[in-house]
Amino acid sequence: MLAASINGVAVDSPATGLSLEDRGLSYGDGVFETISLRAGAARFLADHLARLSQGLERLEIEAPPLELVAADVAELIRHAREGIVKVIVTRGAAGRGYRPGSQVATRIVLLYPPVEREEKAISARWCSTRLGRNARLAGIKHLNRLEQVLAQNEWNDPAIAEGVMMDTEGEVVCGTASNLFVVNDGVLITADLRFSGVRGIMRQRVLNIAARLGIGTRECSLWPNDLTSASEVFFTNAVRGIRAVTDLDGRKFEIGPMTSRLMQAVESEA
Amino acid sequence: MLAASINGVAVDSPATGLSLEDRGLSYGDGVFETISLRAGAARFLADHLARLSQGLERLEIEAPPLELVAADVAELIRHAREGIVKVIVTRGAAGRGYRPGSQVATRIVLLYPPVEREEKAISARWCSTRLGRNARLAGIKHLNRLEQVLAQNEWNDPAIAEGVMMDTEGEVVCGTASNLFVVNDGVLITADLRFSGVRGIMRQRVLNIAARLGIGTRECSLWPNDLTSASEVFFTNAVRGIRAVTDLDGRKFEIGPMTSRLMQAVESEA
Repeated sequence: MLAASINGVAVDSPATGLSLEDRGLSYGDGVFETISLRAGAARFLADHLARLSQGLERLEIEAPPLELVAADVAELIRHAREGIVKVIVTRGAAGRGYRPGSQVATRIVLLYPPVEREEKAISARWCSTRLGRNARLAGIKHLNRLEQVLAQNEWNDPAIAEGVMMDTEGEVVCGTASNLFVVNDGVLITADLRFSGVRGIMRQRVLNIAARLGIGTRECSLWPNDLTSASEVFFTNAVRGIRAVTDLDGRKFEIGPMTSRLMQAVESEA
Repeated sequence: MLAASINGVAVDSPATGLSLEDRGLSYGDGVFETISLRAGAARFLADHLARLSQGLERLEIEAPPLELVAADVAELIRHAREGIVKVIVTRGAAGRGYRPGSQVATRIVLLYPPVEREEKAISARWCSTRLGRNARLAGIKHLNRLEQVLAQNEWNDPAIAEGVMMDTEGEVVCGTASNLFVVNDGVLITADLRFSGVRGIMRQRVLNIAARLGIGTRECSLWPNDLTSASEVFFTNAVRGIRAVTDLDGRKFEIGPMTSRLMQAVESEA
C-alpha cells in the first residue's frame, strides 16, 4: 500500500490499530466468537476456542496459538464481572488480492456490557432474506454475514426478538443470530447445517444435555411445516441461552415441558 | 464497547484509524471497487461510483455523497500517475449485533502500485471451491469474499493466472477475480449472474462494445460444456482488461479474432 485515507483523512501506515489492509475488512476473511462473561469468567471458553480453531482450519488460516487468544481474553476481562466478549481472528493484513499469503493472523478482543435481562419467551417472525447454500462454509462462524445483516434489517418492531431463516431451497436453518430447535412427537430436532448456518456452542450443549437426559434428538433437514406442526419451538445462543418461541407470525406455542427442562439444565451448567 | 485489544495490545477507543467495531470488519457489511489509475486519472470512475452506489442501495446502506468519495479518490491520487485505487465503503462503526442502526458509512481509499505488465494470453484452471447461490447478493461487489479467497488458495503455480468458478449447482459463473466470456458459434456469451458473481465494470463495457461492433451477445446460464466447446474464452477485469485463455487445465484455445478485436477496442477506450 502506498497511501491511504479514512473518511478523507490521510492515515500513516501502518496504523497503530487495525490495518486498513486487514483481510478481515477486505474479504471477511476470518472468524469470530461471542462469549458470555459471568461472575468474572468467560463461559464455555474451551468450546469457543475449539470452534474458533476449527473454523480457522477450514478457512486454511494459520491459527494463532490458542493460549495467546485465551490470554488476550483474560487480560481484557481482568477487571470485569459481567459482559460479553467478542473475539475476532482474521487472516491478517496483506496487500491487494484474494490469494492468501504468509500473513500473521490478527487477534481482536472486544468487551461489551452484558445483555439486558430478557424474556425467556419471545415472539419471532419468518425472514424473507434467504441463506445461500455452500457446504464449504457451512457451520463456520466466519465474518461473511451480509445475509444475517439483511435479515435483521427486515423488521423494526422491538416486540419481535428473532427471525427464522430459510435457505434458498426453502429448508429452515436457524435464527438470524441463534440456532433453532423444534419438538415433534417428543423428539428434539434441529437443522443439520450441512449447507449453511453456524454450528452454535449452545446448540451442541443442548444436544449433549438432551442425550444425557434420555431425550431423543435428530439433526436433519427442517422444513416450514416442521415448525408449524411442532409442539415446542426454541432458539439457542451462547449469550442468551434458550429462548422459547411463543409466537411465530401469529402461530402460538406454549413453553413446553421439554423446553423448560432444557432451560433449567442449561442454566445449572457451569 | 468497553475495552478492546488488538494483538494483545490495549487500544484506546475510538481509534484514530479504523474502528475495531466497523461493520466492514465484523460482517463484511459493505462494498468495494478496484479502479485503474492511468496517466493520473481514475479510469471508468463514473462506472465504478455508479456500481458502488447501486451495491450500497441493495445492501440498504445509506451511501455517503458520491462527490465525497470522488474527492477522497482525487486527493489520494493527486501526486500519482499509475496505480490501482481501492475504495471500500462500509455501513460504519456500531456496537454488537447484526441489526444495522443509524451509522455513518465509513469511506476508505487505498492506493497501490500498478500491476506488472501481464501476458494477454493466460493459462487457467477449474476451481473446486463453489459459489453459493443467493439472488439477494448476486452481482454486488460486497465484502463477503471467502469463496474467492478459498478458490485462489487452491493453487500456487504462478503459471496459472486465473481460476474458473462454478456455483453449487454446477453453473459456470466467473473467474476468481474476473468475469468470463466464451465465443460459441460466433456469439459472445457470458454468465447472467442471477445467483452469484460480481457485475464487472469491464464485463459491461465489453458487452456495450460488442453491441456497437454488431457482435451478437447473450447473457445466460453457462455450463462446463459451453467452455469446452467454445472457440474463444477470455476473462475481463477493470484493472487487467481482457485476458485470453489459451489453456484451461490442458484444453487449448487460440486467441481468436473476436477476442483480439475486443481487446483492441477496450484498450482504445478512454
